[in-house]
Amino acid sequence: MFKILKKSKISSARIGILKTKLGRIDTPFFMPIATRGVIKSLSFSDIEKLNPDIILANTYHLYLKPGLEVIKKFGSLNNFINYKKPILTDSGGFQVFSLSKIRKITNEGVNFKSTYDGSNHLFTPEKVMKIQSVLDSDIQMVLDVCIDSKSDYQTTEKALNITNIWAKKCKESKKKFDPKNKNLLFGIVQGALNKDLRKKSLDDLMKIGFDGYAIGGLAVGETNKEMYGILKFLKDKLPEKSPRYLMGVGYPDNILTAVKNGVDMFDCVIPTREARHGRLYYFTNKNLRGKFYKTINITNAEFKKDKSAINKNSNIDELKLYSKSYLHHLFKVEDALAMRLGTLNNIEFYLELMRIIRKNIEKGVL
Amino acid sequence: MFKILKKSKISSARIGILKTKLGRIDTPFFMPIATRGVIKSLSFSDIEKLNPDIILANTYHLYLKPGLEVIKKFGSLNNFINYKKPILTDSGGFQVFSLSKIRKITNEGVNFKSTYDGSNHLFTPEKVMKIQSVLDSDIQMVLDVCIDSKSDYQTTEKALNITNIWAKKCKESKKKFDPKNKNLLFGIVQGALNKDLRKKSLDDLMKIGFDGYAIGGLAVGETNKEMYGILKFLKDKLPEKSPRYLMGVGYPDNILTAVKNGVDMFDCVIPTREARHGRLYYFTNKNLRGKFYKTINITNAEFKKDKSAINKNSNIDELKLYSKSYLHHLFKVEDALAMRLGTLNNIEFYLELMRIIRKNIEKGVL
Repeated sequence: MFKILKKSKISSARIGILKTKLGRIDTPFFMPIATRGVIKSLSFSDIEKLNPDIILANTYHLYLKPGLEVIKKFGSLNNFINYKKPILTDSGGFQVFSLSKIRKITNEGVNFKSTYDGSNHLFTPEKVMKIQSVLDSDIQMVLDVCIDSKSDYQTTEKALNITNIWAKKCKESKKKFDPKNKNLLFGIVQGALNKDLRKKSLDDLMKIGFDGYAIGGLAVGETNKEMYGILKFLKDKLPEKSPRYLMGVGYPDNILTAVKNGVDMFDCVIPTREARHGRLYYFTNKNLRGKFYKTINITNAEFKKDKSAINKNSNIDELKLYSKSYLHHLFKVEDALAMRLGTLNNIEFYLELMRIIRKNIEKGVL
Repeated sequence: MFKILKKSKISSARIGILKTKLGRIDTPFFMPIATRGVIKSLSFSDIEKLNPDIILANTYHLYLKPGLEVIKKFGSLNNFINYKKPILTDSGGFQVFSLSKIRKITNEGVNFKSTYDGSNHLFTPEKVMKIQSVLDSDIQMVLDVCIDSKSDYQTTEKALNITNIWAKKCKESKKKFDPKNKNLLFGIVQGALNKDLRKKSLDDLMKIGFDGYAIGGLAVGETNKEMYGILKFLKDKLPEKSPRYLMGVGYPDNILTAVKNGVDMFDCVIPTREARHGRLYYFTNKNLRGKFYKTINITNAEFKKDKSAINKNSNIDELKLYSKSYLHHLFKVEDALAMRLGTLNNIEFYLELMRIIRKNIEKGVL
């Protein structure tokens, strides 16, 4: 399922291949976000041009809209969105806690109100596994309790205890919903910034046993130093032969540092969300030394008459043949093509970043 | 410049070829609308799939945003928007009267406030020809005074007198800005629903002499019967050997009737604007008999679980491979891909309608 091809001698980075039902994915990799079953504004033709190996969708949102009855009709989320490669689905834990009014958390599950219409819903570990089995995503996540990374010891401990009870129930439920074990299930290490609790969370999850281990509860307001501290602490404790997924991270330098600390998988809204506001990512060097990238805000006046290509090094015709001036104009007249071009640029950047990272690990320089 | 290939024996319809600087366009044709230099949400790859022979852009909007200084940098609107085929630019007359607070209309021109920032601007015949020469559009329109089709005789007469004074000045100005006469200039017949005034307007324009003649001031609130009355009245009075352009029209049955009354060119916001609200056009038969098309509102609940293709007969992969259910979902979560797919569907319908119309004229059945 997961094969490590090479381990760095100068860091904890490694390259490998993660095999899932629908694909073979080179690690480390980045998953573009298709929260609601669409990478915002992109069609499958656009996605084919970017050619990611895997994308991420969200259980919470898809459960509420379009709802399971619709996905069931299609047999899988892949069929519904006309995408043939692997999909990872987040369990919805993070969205329940960030978007919804929570009514009650117990060992059984969490009651919440829909962010769309205020209707009441209950997510139990069994329920989120059932939903993910309908989505039939290649990689599925356990339901977790998400808390502020600054929470006190008692709150953090309570949250991770429930997370681990839920994790165990998720694993049991998956046997029922995926008896042939087609899809992978990942546990999520919680414990905020407390190392003892991170260790306890991980130990509990390893006892249950998962196909991969995610690090949750980071990139939620703590400093880079605090985040890196947890990554360094966990890197020798996470099971070496399992894929490691740092959820919701991050900026390119966060990803690079995390890779050096042994992380294999990433997802983040940054490239897509910032694109929608006109912030575009570019490499300044491809050695990944120092400040190896820059961002520009294409809506700035300096780009109004800039005839240069959006990205002359792009593999996507639109980014090579449309000018920065035209993209500036599209943002100023608020045309939907603006966000689409920005999104293409930034996802291409992130996917290229991961290719360079993998190559550098292979060459022994990272 | 314009060659009629065949005239119908059963109606005033005709097929022909209009040659412009950048292309040869089969008539009758429909121009998708790229008001601000973009067919809303579509990139050139999308446009290539639709393959229109000509698109329409707007002088008023492009003059205000991005402004002439930007277009000048690129040498032409074609270069700015990366589109290689002919473009027709409306003069902006219609927008000045529909979008802006007008301060004053005189024989010299019209003072108005920008719809974007309220700034004051003056459009004179010379000014709009200068703008269109910077845009370097293949077909350019004279500045016209647009009034309500229900206006009284005196108002209508005054408007068309100014329109014709401006038309003469436009023609003079074009000699200065386009000395090699690369681009075409069309006059615009005004006169609301009054046949005498329509005749007077046309006679005045013919005395000046234009490359083509547009019928303006229709599809602005009058009944179909009233509109068709004017078309029938004008069909034998318009110079037969010049292309005829019915501005801003219309629904598919309006276009079909207008073609039978000798019209060669159309533009309309309907396919693109309605697409953005989820209204999609489909043929029910391709003989163009009776009610030959239908529309659906994809946001209706009946499409929530509809697995059928958006349009199984489409030439565009996205419309063949995405389901109505998925498009319904995209509208419900308000993703920009929704309007893009709807726009592709409706423009493809309109372009196909024109192909069928041309074929039917060729076959002698229209």
